[in-house]
Amino acid sequence: MSELVRVVVDAMGGDYAPEEPVKGAVEALRENQSIFIYLAGKEDVIRRELKKYTYPEDRLKIVPASQVIETGEPPAAAIQKKKDSSLVAGLQMVRKGEADAFVSSGSTGAVLVGGQVIVRKIPGVERAPLAPLIPTERGVSLLIDCGANVDARPSHLLQFAAMGSIYMEYILGVKKPRVAIVNIGAEEEKGNALVKETFPLLKECRDIHFVGNIEARDIPKGKADVIVTEAFVGNVILKLYEGVASVLIHEVKKGMLSTLRSKIGALLVKPALKETLKSFDASEYGGAPLLGLRGLVVKTHGSAKAIEIRHSIHQCVQFQKQELNQKIQQYLRLSDR
Amino acid sequence: MSELVRVVVDAMGGDYAPEEPVKGAVEALRENQSIFIYLAGKEDVIRRELKKYTYPEDRLKIVPASQVIETGEPPAAAIQKKKDSSLVAGLQMVRKGEADAFVSSGSTGAVLVGGQVIVRKIPGVERAPLAPLIPTERGVSLLIDCGANVDARPSHLLQFAAMGSIYMEYILGVKKPRVAIVNIGAEEEKGNALVKETFPLLKECRDIHFVGNIEARDIPKGKADVIVTEAFVGNVILKLYEGVASVLIHEVKKGMLSTLRSKIGALLVKPALKETLKSFDASEYGGAPLLGLRGLVVKTHGSAKAIEIRHSIHQCVQFQKQELNQKIQQYLRLSDR
Repeated sequence: MSELVRVVVDAMGGDYAPEEPVKGAVEALRENQSIFIYLAGKEDVIRRELKKYTYPEDRLKIVPASQVIETGEPPAAAIQKKKDSSLVAGLQMVRKGEADAFVSSGSTGAVLVGGQVIVRKIPGVERAPLAPLIPTERGVSLLIDCGANVDARPSHLLQFAAMGSIYMEYILGVKKPRVAIVNIGAEEEKGNALVKETFPLLKECRDIHFVGNIEARDIPKGKADVIVTEAFVGNVILKLYEGVASVLIHEVKKGMLSTLRSKIGALLVKPALKETLKSFDASEYGGAPLLGLRGLVVKTHGSAKAIEIRHSIHQCVQFQKQELNQKIQQYLRLSDR
Repeated sequence: MSELVRVVVDAMGGDYAPEEPVKGAVEALRENQSIFIYLAGKEDVIRRELKKYTYPEDRLKIVPASQVIETGEPPAAAIQKKKDSSLVAGLQMVRKGEADAFVSSGSTGAVLVGGQVIVRKIPGVERAPLAPLIPTERGVSLLIDCGANVDARPSHLLQFAAMGSIYMEYILGVKKPRVAIVNIGAEEEKGNALVKETFPLLKECRDIHFVGNIEARDIPKGKADVIVTEAFVGNVILKLYEGVASVLIHEVKKGMLSTLRSKIGALLVKPALKETLKSFDASEYGGAPLLGLRGLVVKTHGSAKAIEIRHSIHQCVQFQKQELNQKIQQYLRLSDR
C-alpha cells in the first residue's frame, strides 16, 4: 500500500463534472496498478457516477465535501469561505501528506491560490509557476509561467527555467531540454527590461541548457522544450494558441462544407485529418502542473474530458516516482541563492 | 497634379525586391488615377524591372539610391551610415513634404527607427506605434502596438487607443470601433501593473468606444476592432498568430496528403479551402502603418508580394484623402494632455 501514488481528483470541478472527472479517474485506476484515487466531492453524486463502472474498489475512496467553488468566485475569498469544498478538501489532503497530488478542472484562480496558500511552496521557491504543455510540430513544449502572478522578477524566471528543465527531463523524458526565453527578436540585446536582465543570468546558469531567445512565431515549430516567460505573456501565448487553432480549424471545416464538391472531399480527408489535429490537441498531454509546491497540484482545462483527467493522473504518478520535488529541492540547494 | 497622392515605394526592401515592390507599384498605379509613385533604389535595377510593364509613365519616377539597408544591420547605425539607401532616401522625401507616404518591406527595425528619426512624430504624440491589421473570424482587427519600443506607460496606451480608433473608422470604415485592452482575464481588477493603471483611463476616455479587457483567445474571434497592448505583448501576439496559423495549415496539408484516400479528397476540397485560408492571410489587407508620424510610413512583411505592396499603396491614398494626420492632431488638441 505504501508504494501507491495517492491522487485526489476534484470530482466537482469543470464543465463536465462529475461525469468526466469520475470517468477519467476510473480509467486511470484500471490502467495503472500503482494508483490510489480519492474522489473529492458530494458523496451521493459521486456514488451515483461510480455505479456506471466496475473498478478496483480497494484503490478508490470518496472524500465527502459538500461545497463547490464556482469559476466566477473571487479565488481567495472562496477558499477562505468554502472550507468544505472539494477543492479545499483535496488540497488539504496534499498539505497533510495524506495524498501526493491533486487534480482539478475547477476555477484556475482557486487552484492557483489554493495551491500556494494550502499546499504551500517548497522553501526557497520564490514563485510557483503554472506550466502547461503546448503542442508543437515536433511534439510538446513546456510553457512556464502561465499563472496569475504577473510582474515577475529575473530571479523568478531563473527558477522557472530550472524547474521546467527538471520537469521536461524526468516527466517527458527529454534529454538535455533546450531552454529559451520569449523575446521579440533573436538577438541578445533585444527585449524589455525584464528579459534584458534575465538573459545574462540564464546564460550563466550551468544547470540548464539555455539556447537563447525564442520569437513567438517559432514556438509552434518546437524550437525549444522549455519556454520561459512571465505569467502575463505566458497567459497570452497559451490562450492565443488555443484561440487561433480553434478559429482556424473551424474555418477549415466551414470551407470544406461550402460546396458539394468539397463536401465529398471532406469525407475522404476526414480520417487522415483527425489524426493530424489530434497531435495538436493539448488535452492529449494532460493538465498543467503548478510547480514548486510541497505536493503536486495539476490544473486541467475547465472543459477537460476523461482523457485529460486520465493523462493528468498518470502524470502525477510519474512525478512522484521520479521524485521531482526532491530534484527541485536539490537544485535549490545547489544554486547560489 | 496637386491632388495626386505621392507614395514612395522602397524598391530594394524585402525578400522579393526589386520584382515584387515594382510589380505592386505598377499595379496600384494602373488601378488608381490619383496615385503618383516614386520608386526608390538602384536606377538600373528598377529600370530593368519596369521594362516588363506598360504603365502611366507620367505618374512614376525613379528616385536613385545606391545603397541597401540589410535586415541584419543594427537599425540606428544603418540609417546613420547609409544616407544613400532607398530607405533613407524615401523617408527623407516624406520629411521634406516631397511625398506623402513611404512603403517598405525592408528591415522592420530600420523602418521604425527611420520613421521616428527622419519623418518624426506629430508634436504631442508620445510614441509612434506600429499597428498591423490581423485577420479574424469576422474580418480584421488593428493590433496596436507591435513596434520596437517596449516598456510602455499608460499614457502611451491611451494614445494608441485613440489613433487606432481613428484609423479603423476612417481607413477601414468601421463605425464606432470597439477598443479593448489585452488582459489575462475579462474582469476589471485583473492584469499586470500597466494594464491595471491603463484600464480606468481608457474607461474615462470619451473619444473612444472602450469595451474593456480582451483575452488573447478572443482576438481571433474578432471581439474587438482595436486591440491595445504594449509592444512586447503585441509583438508576441502578431508573431504567434502567424506561427500557429502556418504550422497548422502545414499540418492540415500534410494530413491531407498522408493517404491515397485523403489525397483524392484533398483535390476536391482544395478550391473551397483556398478561399477560406485567403481570408486568414494578413497580406490581403496591406502592411502595418506606423501611426502618429508627420507623414505616413507603412511597413509591409519582409516576404511581401506585389499584392501586399499594392494594397498598402491604396491604404496610403485612403490615409491621405481622409486627412488622418489632421484627425490625430485634432484629437491631441481636444484631449487634456
